Amino acid sequence: MVKIETEHGSHQFPMRQPIITLTTDFGLDDHYVATMKGVILGLCPQATIVDITHGIAPFEISEGAFTLMEAWSAFPKKTIHVAVVDPGVGSSRRPILVEAGGHYFVGPDNGLLAMVYGPMLERNESVRVRCLEKPQYFRPSVSRTFHGRDIFAPVAAHLALGVTPAKFGSRIEDYLKLQSFWPTRTSKRLWTGQVLKIDRFGNLISNFSETQFDGIKTRPFELSIGTEKIHRLALNYAEVPFGEPVAIIGSSGFVEISVNQGHAAKQLGCGVGAPIELSLW
Amino acid sequence: MVKIETEHGSHQFPMRQPIITLTTDFGLDDHYVATMKGVILGLCPQATIVDITHGIAPFEISEGAFTLMEAWSAFPKKTIHVAVVDPGVGSSRRPILVEAGGHYFVGPDNGLLAMVYGPMLERNESVRVRCLEKPQYFRPSVSRTFHGRDIFAPVAAHLALGVTPAKFGSRIEDYLKLQSFWPTRTSKRLWTGQVLKIDRFGNLISNFSETQFDGIKTRPFELSIGTEKIHRLALNYAEVPFGEPVAIIGSSGFVEISVNQGHAAKQLGCGVGAPIELSLW
Amino acid sequence: MVKIETEHGSHQFPMRQPIITLTTDFGLDDHYVATMKGVILGLCPQATIVDITHGIAPFEISEGAFTLMEAWSAFPKKTIHVAVVDPGVGSSRRPILVEAGGHYFVGPDNGLLAMVYGPMLERNESVRVRCLEKPQYFRPSVSRTFHGRDIFAPVAAHLALGVTPAKFGSRIEDYLKLQSFWPTRTSKRLWTGQVLKIDRFGNLISNFSETQFDGIKTRPFELSIGTEKIHRLALNYAEVPFGEPVAIIGSSGFVEISVNQGHAAKQLGCGVGAPIELSLW
Repeated sequence: MVKIETEHGSHQFPMRQPIITLTTDFGLDDHYVATMKGVILGLCPQATIVDITHGIAPFEISEGAFTLMEAWSAFPKKTIHVAVVDPGVGSSRRPILVEAGGHYFVGPDNGLLAMVYGPMLERNESVRVRCLEKPQYFRPSVSRTFHGRDIFAPVAAHLALGVTPAKFGSRIEDYLKLQSFWPTRTSKRLWTGQVLKIDRFGNLISNFSETQFDGIKTRPFELSIGTEKIHRLALNYAEVPFGEPVAIIGSSGFVEISVNQGHAAKQLGCGVGAPIELSLW
Repeated sequence: MVKIETEHGSHQFPMRQPIITLTTDFGLDDHYVATMKGVILGLCPQATIVDITHGIAPFEISEGAFTLMEAWSAFPKKTIHVAVVDPGVGSSRRPILVEAGGHYFVGPDNGLLAMVYGPMLERNESVRVRCLEKPQYFRPSVSRTFHGRDIFAPVAAHLALGVTPAKFGSRIEDYLKLQSFWPTRTSKRLWTGQVLKIDRFGNLISNFSETQFDGIKTRPFELSIGTEKIHRLALNYAEVPFGEPVAIIGSSGFVEISVNQGHAAKQLGCGVGAPIELSLW
Repeated sequence: MVKIETEHGSHQFPMRQPIITLTTDFGLDDHYVATMKGVILGLCPQATIVDITHGIAPFEISEGAFTLMEAWSAFPKKTIHVAVVDPGVGSSRRPILVEAGGHYFVGPDNGLLAMVYGPMLERNESVRVRCLEKPQYFRPSVSRTFHGRDIFAPVAAHLALGVTPAKFGSRIEDYLKLQSFWPTRTSKRLWTGQVLKIDRFGNLISNFSETQFDGIKTRPFELSIGTEKIHRLALNYAEVPFGEPVAIIGSSGFVEISVNQGHAAKQLGCGVGAPIELSLW
């Protein structure tokens, strides 16, 4: 803690400004994101707010879950990640606070946070989930349609101010867990996975992780997607001729199918959810 | 004020970082928004700058006015809101500073700020408007086409540094007031309003406010828009079947027409300005 | 420097928060920009990060170069500008740090920074370029496809922390210089230039600079673009009738062709690179 003397007496605040990230499907053209930021700064003016994205397609929980999973670990410990893709807002779905990996996550219990804690649960790492049930940490009046502003933003701000997680509500165990989203083994040398995400550059990001499938770095393989069969793993985009599809270990540790300076998704005619088969010898 | 000792002597600054919001039609792809931020941070490095939106359609003053009206009150008192949708830049339209509701607003006198102060004037609340006429608070060289960078940004930064409003120019009374944008009563039980805004989710936000029309919470009503007639007020989106249009009190206190997980504007074929009739028994 | 006493002993930090700007072709819908910000804040939590734009079209180095050139000088001295439009990431193109105009620039040596230092080299001003070659200032593990996160962001953060430029690598002279992008004189009274950029409003920003061609303010001229011939220089957009094309000295000191409340690029059917001829008497 830093101690500073002011005209109102001495004041303590954390040397590290608390960081709050936002991931939503609200877009940037309406006032929704700004009102969340206004609420946060009204409670915790020293917070540094960082947008992960507000470009999640409306109601696409799995797209939001994937983007948050890709981004969160680049931030320092104790970062507070608020995620709101919330088609069931105002219904019985619960608002939750998750402590996992040394970070905090605040959002609806609808699977949006599950790609963060899912792999940790598989590795038996600590994941603590609480139901947000203390209205003293909400806005005085909670609407039925905008919990981002009325519940998740003020809870994040109170966390940033140092309120301990236990104060927000009791622990629950029946929060939503995802089916494993890893590839399934369909025969001795064959796995079936899928496209998790298409990024701005048209790269097809698969659910084949580097840790699970590092064999493709050293052994012959065949990756089948659409009508394309890929046998080459490149180290960077520039290594292959213009327009040729290639597999690459992407920057977040998943196998991607890319086209050097081209748009793989358009060229291969594949979208999110498209099946990918991997034969590994 | 906080007092901090530095190698250049002791230094005072406000404990609360000043907050400056930006609402423009500049988009995010050009350099315009960043140059405004550069100017602000050059003068007031401790400012926290928050984008409300830069996605206002070019020259659409009323869209900018609506979005600012929806967002400003979520911010803490003394926030400085800069708004620039300014087709008349460089002409005789005046640059103004408005003190209203405990906040500051800086922008052109073209109606962009009028949805903020209009309701206050109707309620006889204090609204002070000044013409920005002191070039010492502008950039040294003022272009004819970019007052956002050359006038509004530096004025906001000087306000954030603690310059008092009276220093920026003298008070005026002949600033632009809007026609009332509330619904008009067309017979004993009938009001005619309109669609103010369509948000990212396709919700049609009307000008029927919760305070003026709270009767719809308890009395039978009929809301007519396009070929649709709506008799049901829902508490949240999830309460109604997929695809059914419903009225709802939106998160900013206006009646909205929504479709659960659908796009009401597309489904009803309605746009901004579309008339809405409300019969209330 | 400010000295603050904390529970861990006394702590010094710069009174002015360091500013880091970002210019990329990453878009705002993926996790890439946020991971860069996470890396920066993890190393230098007091940094103020400002987006110039992430809307550069994928791989369009010259568009990125132009936007950065337009924006950088609005920021205060010592600002650190990170730019990543990097189709050759992971290949032999070098990562560089440029000291020019009292600012720092970090990015790939592919021409992206060349519109900043090009005019300075022409004026014989100091430009120092270093190759980034010290992995202790990179992320511990550097991917082949995302140097924005793994090299440029952490280098910028270390600069913001006060590491001196010489520590990042040795000076080089064979960095990429652009051909002069100024208009060429084709006869005594005739110059040929081109459209550098089309902004959100459809304005065609040319490479005729105010300083080089200030004659058009006082002498008769003819500007030919497409089938249009323009003889009038306006002071602001509002001065000309709706829909009439006009030349104007834009806010960054280049001649622009604009249409009052219209979209000049669509109306004239011209794009980036379109030739412009100027006759000046």
